[in-house]
Amino acid sequence: MAKSKYEYVKNFETEKKLLPNCWIVVRIDGRAFHQFSTKHKFKKPNDENALALMNRAASVVMDEFKDILLSYGQSDEYSFVIRKDTTLYNRRGPKIMTYINSLFSTSYVYYWSHYFKETRLKYPPAFDARIILYPTDENLRDYLSWRQADCHINNLYNTTFWALVLKGGLTNTEAEKRLCGTLSSDKNEILFSEFNTNYNNEPIMYRKGTILIRKRIKNPEHGKMRQVILPLHEDMIQDNFWQKHSEILAIKSSQSYEWPPDMPLPDIVMSQLHINTRDRDKEIVVIEETV
Amino acid sequence: MAKSKYEYVKNFETEKKLLPNCWIVVRIDGRAFHQFSTKHKFKKPNDENALALMNRAASVVMDEFKDILLSYGQSDEYSFVIRKDTTLYNRRGPKIMTYINSLFSTSYVYYWSHYFKETRLKYPPAFDARIILYPTDENLRDYLSWRQADCHINNLYNTTFWALVLKGGLTNTEAEKRLCGTLSSDKNEILFSEFNTNYNNEPIMYRKGTILIRKRIKNPEHGKMRQVILPLHEDMIQDNFWQKHSEILAIKSSQSYEWPPDMPLPDIVMSQLHINTRDRDKEIVVIEETV
Amino acid sequence: MAKSKYEYVKNFETEKKLLPNCWIVVRIDGRAFHQFSTKHKFKKPNDENALALMNRAASVVMDEFKDILLSYGQSDEYSFVIRKDTTLYNRRGPKIMTYINSLFSTSYVYYWSHYFKETRLKYPPAFDARIILYPTDENLRDYLSWRQADCHINNLYNTTFWALVLKGGLTNTEAEKRLCGTLSSDKNEILFSEFNTNYNNEPIMYRKGTILIRKRIKNPEHGKMRQVILPLHEDMIQDNFWQKHSEILAIKSSQSYEWPPDMPLPDIVMSQLHINTRDRDKEIVVIEETV
Amino acid sequence: MAKSKYEYVKNFETEKKLLPNCWIVVRIDGRAFHQFSTKHKFKKPNDENALALMNRAASVVMDEFKDILLSYGQSDEYSFVIRKDTTLYNRRGPKIMTYINSLFSTSYVYYWSHYFKETRLKYPPAFDARIILYPTDENLRDYLSWRQADCHINNLYNTTFWALVLKGGLTNTEAEKRLCGTLSSDKNEILFSEFNTNYNNEPIMYRKGTILIRKRIKNPEHGKMRQVILPLHEDMIQDNFWQKHSEILAIKSSQSYEWPPDMPLPDIVMSQLHINTRDRDKEIVVIEETV
Repeated sequence: MAKSKYEYVKNFETEKKLLPNCWIVVRIDGRAFHQFSTKHKFKKPNDENALALMNRAASVVMDEFKDILLSYGQSDEYSFVIRKDTTLYNRRGPKIMTYINSLFSTSYVYYWSHYFKETRLKYPPAFDARIILYPTDENLRDYLSWRQADCHINNLYNTTFWALVLKGGLTNTEAEKRLCGTLSSDKNEILFSEFNTNYNNEPIMYRKGTILIRKRIKNPEHGKMRQVILPLHEDMIQDNFWQKHSEILAIKSSQSYEWPPDMPLPDIVMSQLHINTRDRDKEIVVIEETV
Repeated sequence: MAKSKYEYVKNFETEKKLLPNCWIVVRIDGRAFHQFSTKHKFKKPNDENALALMNRAASVVMDEFKDILLSYGQSDEYSFVIRKDTTLYNRRGPKIMTYINSLFSTSYVYYWSHYFKETRLKYPPAFDARIILYPTDENLRDYLSWRQADCHINNLYNTTFWALVLKGGLTNTEAEKRLCGTLSSDKNEILFSEFNTNYNNEPIMYRKGTILIRKRIKNPEHGKMRQVILPLHEDMIQDNFWQKHSEILAIKSSQSYEWPPDMPLPDIVMSQLHINTRDRDKEIVVIEETV
Repeated sequence: MAKSKYEYVKNFETEKKLLPNCWIVVRIDGRAFHQFSTKHKFKKPNDENALALMNRAASVVMDEFKDILLSYGQSDEYSFVIRKDTTLYNRRGPKIMTYINSLFSTSYVYYWSHYFKETRLKYPPAFDARIILYPTDENLRDYLSWRQADCHINNLYNTTFWALVLKGGLTNTEAEKRLCGTLSSDKNEILFSEFNTNYNNEPIMYRKGTILIRKRIKNPEHGKMRQVILPLHEDMIQDNFWQKHSEILAIKSSQSYEWPPDMPLPDIVMSQLHINTRDRDKEIVVIEETV
Repeated sequence: MAKSKYEYVKNFETEKKLLPNCWIVVRIDGRAFHQFSTKHKFKKPNDENALALMNRAASVVMDEFKDILLSYGQSDEYSFVIRKDTTLYNRRGPKIMTYINSLFSTSYVYYWSHYFKETRLKYPPAFDARIILYPTDENLRDYLSWRQADCHINNLYNTTFWALVLKGGLTNTEAEKRLCGTLSSDKNEILFSEFNTNYNNEPIMYRKGTILIRKRIKNPEHGKMRQVILPLHEDMIQDNFWQKHSEILAIKSSQSYEWPPDMPLPDIVMSQLHINTRDRDKEIVVIEETV
């Protein structure tokens, strides 16, 4: 068979390599997730299970691609920060971007039933991905600040909107009109005076999003230190975060982290430590297999 | 909150548009599927269910993106041919590529249990994607010929290899050595003389791969014409295919197709026609919802 | 000397190859030529010497790069059409673009004094360049039609504008106002009724621009056929041009062309035939050397 | 005239913007300059006039494009370093690259006769250009170190080669063979023991190339400070250079520089100060006009 006769078509493929020595960010974003969340009856303004599922999918990606130093998720988006000296797939952008996106996507479906026990996944969702280069630490920090500021702005809006609708009895359109042109301070005031809600006491995961970084923590079962992907809900905009977790920008090995003894370890950490939580033992094994 | 202070980072994003008036091909490819197929005990040399699942995932993609005129799949890869005048996502390559890849990926997991009733999916798989432009019909045809020739070459090799191993009792290494340097005719001869197998009688889906195109067929229940995504296993290398299905290169509306009355309609067509086959009625509904 | 220590910086270079099987167009364009033409007292609306110099510079480029099949110039711009199967510089776009642009630029300065005997070049001009791909013959023809239509529109405007100013005694601003919102027919009418000028009788080079193509013509000295780069001023928008010069789109060797015996051969052709015209024998030698 | 019918072809143009916050380097390089230098009888191993002409052309470019902070030239190549925060042409790479290349090219021809009084330019030369991004100061310094190390290596080789040929009476081939596999120390030894030449006493411009930076110097005529583009021949590999000229990486305004009183100001500086040196007054005016 004249295979060679057709192989010239390979020359039409391009192979764009990413500029060296730049931070690489892959951001994935849900397609038509407004509709998706409605169809699957996500709680408003935040669905804890939906966010936990996003975090789980991201942790699978991060577990697979060791060059991801930090991930940040909020709403239906997740950003993955890849070390600037990575040689992953010879820095071919499309390869990096599509593998991360695909693995996130399949993990989202794979773990769906673990987080939504009673809601059947009605159809396969989709995520898009983009890849962005940031030459300096400052640019990278500003990127993450941008996404976290976006999380805050959207969450404050959504929290107020849904308070007006669910507790205040307004229609969606009425709530929209009410909020049109309001400042942050106005929304805080509405929440406080009308719904007796102090926005700052809302769950921190909703207000700050979720940061995943590699840390060494004490295994609660046998007390030995173990590296895990840890979900944090801290403020990345201030310098403090970057001083406390200085290994990230320095591209150093993971540091030890003292988890508050009175707080339960998050689900996705327990699974990494092979500690059974409820009925999840099978999936825990699965994740390990993919390492 | 000083959101604007950080928004400058959006300028680091690039927005590459695809050259107009070129055929667009997106090819997805399984990551480490050799290992994946072993872990999930795929039958060798071909696993009918695994191929049917690939076809199902591709049909979901094609159902969603109407500008895909033809898809072609073999082994763990699938190529999607998008009409050259598409304005999908304003011809932004990464957007087109990542959405198609993501939806294929989630569909693969979503429909897994439908095709593998007894084999649990052990971990989420991943696919990469690439996007390629072909300026002329001839280039596009040569691309598809290249993939179909590749299918033939690999399938002939694998059929012979696994005959030697499974029926001939050779080890993998012995079978490799035996086939090293052999021509197509040699492999045909091995199959015929040693295993009484005429390669040309092997199932056509294995030898030719699967072509998905839109056709109008008669609904067997009520006899009305209905547009469906139809799986064909024909030779795309010869001119005949392109004459018979001339609407593809001409970018015309789908043509009627007479399905052989004595052959059952394939599973993925039945589901599009809302005809229950075994216990699949729930999933059939699901596909329709995504349209 | 630790040379290798620094050589890693070469990895920051990118090497973008042009999509195969597309027509390649390089268009160069004068930088701030409005000012340049004023400083050098170009005649308005058209300076014959300035256009002849552009043509000369383009013919040097075309003589050097044999894969240029056709060039088209008007005003301070020139387009070079490169055969779609070229392997020039391995189809590296920046290389092709910058060499053509640089050689055009240096030739413009080099031959300046030949065309502007009494006007000294006051400072070195500059040209930018862009590179564009066209997948089909139709796209390429439409590109050239676009540039030639642009030539017509601009020249009709400029001819009328300068008639109003130079013959009609209007100021530039008055002439601008007069022409604001006028149609082609209005401008033709102004020229005809006010300045007794039939626009269609204006020199064809001004109305159509200059096309350079390779042709075989009879050397007037000894009568033998010789391949030259021939300047034509024909309509490329109609089919007729492409039928008459069918070798271009067919990428065939140059065809013979019968130059009207009663018309003198253009200057840039004479020089290619080594026929002395006035004092240009030295430069003629020079061009040959660069071949 | 149906102009709009063709304008769609503009959509085939791409507009690639350079990644923000990266140093931009444009390097131009002579095409076939080995042959060019032979044809124009350049002195070997270094032709002072040829290098002075390169420096002059580069200074015209730098005078025109104020965002070029430093230029570095050696042999037939020149690198232009553009400030990383430039918004020149909206950071469109091809535009920046082709304008710089074109202006360098035309200046080379324009000033040829000023440096080569008796050698006529036989044909227009050409230069190619490439554009490279460097994310950090360290990467940029390493780039310049790479080019300066290259200058040293080539010049040591050429100095020894031409000593063997011109003074030692070897043929080119014999000299090549003699030098094959030799280390720097070997070449230094050949020069010293056979030709009584201490390589370190060779003119510094040949050994280090030419750095052009903006400085404020005392105008020798009236003593006032004036900003000029100053040619330096210093070692850029060591830290000392970057401490001394710290304004470059800091993107600060030009600093004052004390020119050694016993050394004549270079030609290209005198022209910037409008001080006549020999018969160059006309060109001096010209440069100013282009600012």
